[in-house]
Amino acid sequence: MSLSSAKFGATLYATENPEKFAKWEPIIAAYNQELVDQCVAFDKAFWNKCLEVLPVQEKFDSEPLASLDYLPQLLTSEELAIVNEYDLKTLLDKQKTKELTATQVVSAFIKASIVSHFTTNSIMQFLIPEALSKAAELDKLPKGQLAGPFHGIPISSKEQMNYKGKVTTASYVQYLDNIAAESSVTVQILESLGAVIHSRTSQPQTIMHLDTWNNIIGRTRNPLNSKLSPGGSSGGGAADVASHSSVIGLSSDIGGSTRLPGAFANLYAIRPTTKRISLMNGLSGGKGQESIVAIQGPLARSIEELDYFMDNYLNKGSPCNYDPNLVPLPWRQTDKIEKKVLRIGVLYTDNLVTPAPAITRGIQETIAKLSAGLPEEELSFEFVDLAPYWYDEETMKTIYNTNVTLYTVDGNKVQLSMLKESGEPILPLTRHFLEFGGGEEHSVYENKMLNYHRDSLKVEMLEKFYKNLNLDFILSPTYVAPAELPANSFYWGYTSFWNLLDYPNVIFPTGVYQDVEKDKFPETQKFLQNVYEKKTWFDDNGSLRYKSEDYVNGPVALQLTGKRYCDEDVVACIKKFEKILKVGRR
Amino acid sequence: MSLSSAKFGATLYATENPEKFAKWEPIIAAYNQELVDQCVAFDKAFWNKCLEVLPVQEKFDSEPLASLDYLPQLLTSEELAIVNEYDLKTLLDKQKTKELTATQVVSAFIKASIVSHFTTNSIMQFLIPEALSKAAELDKLPKGQLAGPFHGIPISSKEQMNYKGKVTTASYVQYLDNIAAESSVTVQILESLGAVIHSRTSQPQTIMHLDTWNNIIGRTRNPLNSKLSPGGSSGGGAADVASHSSVIGLSSDIGGSTRLPGAFANLYAIRPTTKRISLMNGLSGGKGQESIVAIQGPLARSIEELDYFMDNYLNKGSPCNYDPNLVPLPWRQTDKIEKKVLRIGVLYTDNLVTPAPAITRGIQETIAKLSAGLPEEELSFEFVDLAPYWYDEETMKTIYNTNVTLYTVDGNKVQLSMLKESGEPILPLTRHFLEFGGGEEHSVYENKMLNYHRDSLKVEMLEKFYKNLNLDFILSPTYVAPAELPANSFYWGYTSFWNLLDYPNVIFPTGVYQDVEKDKFPETQKFLQNVYEKKTWFDDNGSLRYKSEDYVNGPVALQLTGKRYCDEDVVACIKKFEKILKVGRR
Repeated sequence: MSLSSAKFGATLYATENPEKFAKWEPIIAAYNQELVDQCVAFDKAFWNKCLEVLPVQEKFDSEPLASLDYLPQLLTSEELAIVNEYDLKTLLDKQKTKELTATQVVSAFIKASIVSHFTTNSIMQFLIPEALSKAAELDKLPKGQLAGPFHGIPISSKEQMNYKGKVTTASYVQYLDNIAAESSVTVQILESLGAVIHSRTSQPQTIMHLDTWNNIIGRTRNPLNSKLSPGGSSGGGAADVASHSSVIGLSSDIGGSTRLPGAFANLYAIRPTTKRISLMNGLSGGKGQESIVAIQGPLARSIEELDYFMDNYLNKGSPCNYDPNLVPLPWRQTDKIEKKVLRIGVLYTDNLVTPAPAITRGIQETIAKLSAGLPEEELSFEFVDLAPYWYDEETMKTIYNTNVTLYTVDGNKVQLSMLKESGEPILPLTRHFLEFGGGEEHSVYENKMLNYHRDSLKVEMLEKFYKNLNLDFILSPTYVAPAELPANSFYWGYTSFWNLLDYPNVIFPTGVYQDVEKDKFPETQKFLQNVYEKKTWFDDNGSLRYKSEDYVNGPVALQLTGKRYCDEDVVACIKKFEKILKVGRR
Repeated sequence: MSLSSAKFGATLYATENPEKFAKWEPIIAAYNQELVDQCVAFDKAFWNKCLEVLPVQEKFDSEPLASLDYLPQLLTSEELAIVNEYDLKTLLDKQKTKELTATQVVSAFIKASIVSHFTTNSIMQFLIPEALSKAAELDKLPKGQLAGPFHGIPISSKEQMNYKGKVTTASYVQYLDNIAAESSVTVQILESLGAVIHSRTSQPQTIMHLDTWNNIIGRTRNPLNSKLSPGGSSGGGAADVASHSSVIGLSSDIGGSTRLPGAFANLYAIRPTTKRISLMNGLSGGKGQESIVAIQGPLARSIEELDYFMDNYLNKGSPCNYDPNLVPLPWRQTDKIEKKVLRIGVLYTDNLVTPAPAITRGIQETIAKLSAGLPEEELSFEFVDLAPYWYDEETMKTIYNTNVTLYTVDGNKVQLSMLKESGEPILPLTRHFLEFGGGEEHSVYENKMLNYHRDSLKVEMLEKFYKNLNLDFILSPTYVAPAELPANSFYWGYTSFWNLLDYPNVIFPTGVYQDVEKDKFPETQKFLQNVYEKKTWFDDNGSLRYKSEDYVNGPVALQLTGKRYCDEDVVACIKKFEKILKVGRR
């Protein structure tokens, strides 16, 4: 790929070492070559056709191209129906009746994945032989029988989750020789329920960017506008699902990593309350860190598929039997809402970084539509502007400082030890992350006091917002903009705030997209003076860097947050939203 | 009381300051006087009768007296029936029919509490006016109606849990002016369910001894043998319940603090999996510490009452509505066990500190009885000696070091800041705790690595023991001895191991007691050479300090541990045990 970003700056970062890194470059090349080899071995003609039909990489980098536009030229009409039209349940039905074999389903998604590889660079590692072999096994079952609730369903897994016998790097170059003894618990469970894991999707260096860029496969692109970032850290998974390369993308989130890419790709994604989905047997810099706990969650093209995943994974997969860290809560059914009125707090701005015009417009238009309610169900939505109640700018600074400091509270010792052996170049957003809260080592006492601040906020959220304002949910932006320019997503606050407090949320497409004309900041816009706002909207010279045309095709996907462990209620509410918004399956 | 232990040694500890402390002494005296005043105001004649009938304090300290022996001389036969005979459900029934009023029930328990104050010094603060006023309110309800599942049930609360408008010290002298704005969430819930909180029970300085001794009210005694320690840190609660002064004792546990006093007082006690019972609105040195998470749990005289408490607190009290840290798991019913055979691993010794002979004999005799099973229910118990599978001495040293180091990982900064303002004397077991793992400040990185060790053990416990050995439960000692001499309970491992791993356990009386003749260490006993064994069984000169007669009346209560969040299964199993052991309500 032309996206390799291995570049050292003039002044080396402490862990950078070009000499050491030079030794890893052939290993990186071999890793990438293995992906090509798998594709060629799978279908050489298809690979060559991709090379012939698809624009060159530079064109994807310089023009706002959409990944899905290329499928019709490359896939048969049957394959197109499989990857574009049939949802998860239809795929199961058609396999049950043998109208489709698992091999057909999996092969079609592999082809779409190969296209996604070219258009978005979403995949770090293919598992094509394993996927086809699993599909062939599934096809031995007689008509009318399925191996489980995910029979023959292609699911991609974020690369950091182990896959037995395969290298797991977590995008750290020095782990290119780290072969996993066992698959991640969640992968094992999904495979036992019939799923086919056919690809492992990209994540950024350190898995701590809201972008997806690493020194192994380079940069991943946004599937709706290839000039834009897919978000991160699960940018590969989101690009993959939005390119119709997998039905579900397994992702993880410690500061926005599932939701932000989900929003940038106009998908549905959930950050469940922690300790529902297993993260066991994976690689990350988060070993032993529990001030802000990571989650794993699915990315999906419809709220129904997301719901189906949670239901079957939790209720049929019984992850607690494998991972003692999990809470044994079943997934409650999400079809009925007892209440007649759902009261939803609306956060237009968090008072720290002003969202782009499209986000504000997206909230307004969405609320306008939803305010009509669902009369046939006697369900209505009541919206409460949170502006009079939310934290002010100064308080938000303190909260955000607690939030980001907790990510780097050990002075990044774990992360730096994972970067040092390869001496790999430190990418710009890696440096941004490593400098969070100053990036210095804090004492255990300071860590405790930050935890205590977090705990107070968690209680205050319940008491001040959910109880005193009698709210069912809070609606807010997922990010300050509809997608972002590569290496420019600096501000984590809209998503990381909820990781800090551990309240569950789901992001959902609103059907609103960036409008180049409408979505300009007005001349009279008053920007805040804090460093986060400046870093987000202004360049180093103090000029506004925002240009509405940069965000063309950028979707507005909003974030709905519920009370802790009420993940199901959030999903149920979004199902009702969709009845009004009619955004449809992506 | 004569038990005040405010004494400075020749060399002062860093936080000790006799001058500062002198200013607090009148405040301590006033605090203690308020307790006396409440008792006198409640019933001066009864108070005087106690003074007249009960032995002097020095006698309780020097002879093995049992608290319950004094009730018949001091209470009427009706009061005796209330505190001794009627269990929780009977008390509810009799109040429902108005055979008893809440005022009668509460008054009887207040009298028993006053006796317990003299015999065990279990109470830090009485709430007599509040309790009587609440009882009078309850008595206004018509016949046939109860205010809730704890209508008129006297429950004592560990003092560290806030009570609205009252001083909360957590046994730190400097908090003697700390007036709580709100009661603890659990107290609020219980009160809303009809309970009467009539007393707040003692805990040791720093709440981190396996004993109960502080500079405010002095030392608490064991209710079965007043020369012995009641254990700790919930020694007050256990002494209180075992003295029939409350039906349920609310306690907390971060290293054995519920279970050890429960065992020393021959009661039932549960350390539920974390985050089931709310600890919100309390005072401790654990602010922001989450490497080992404290729990709150009930102490009870029967497994049925313990079960009833958990059921009604969780299912009717809905603590998640108040405390966002909790997991919204309902309490499952514990009457039926589906399995026909329960496989129970037996740990005679953890290979780090050898249990006293009575403990080993208690396990053997219990297993012998239980092995017969419950033929009428087709339920049998299969015991697996864990000796071949358990960690060896060296590994246990590392595990225990991780365990205790995590308690002091910030170099005790929080604790020391809570001791410093008063300059209060540091008690021997406080010093023991402060020196855990060296007592030095560790880096956040080291803390993370210790967490990671803990997490590995948590997984290993599930995989190696529960799954590979196909175990349902693990039976083990609660402590190395049946109760302990004051200020001698040094080794936490038998209980703290399970706090580290966060697997739930319940302790239960076996009906076995220290036998002065039988329970001598044999001449041939081979002791281990590690420091923990030496500190436990030998004095500073290397002589065996164990004398079987010291432990007269010491009960053997064992610990049964289940899988995480399977708290109900542990309770269900002990209900079956009791059908065979027939220990009866304590």
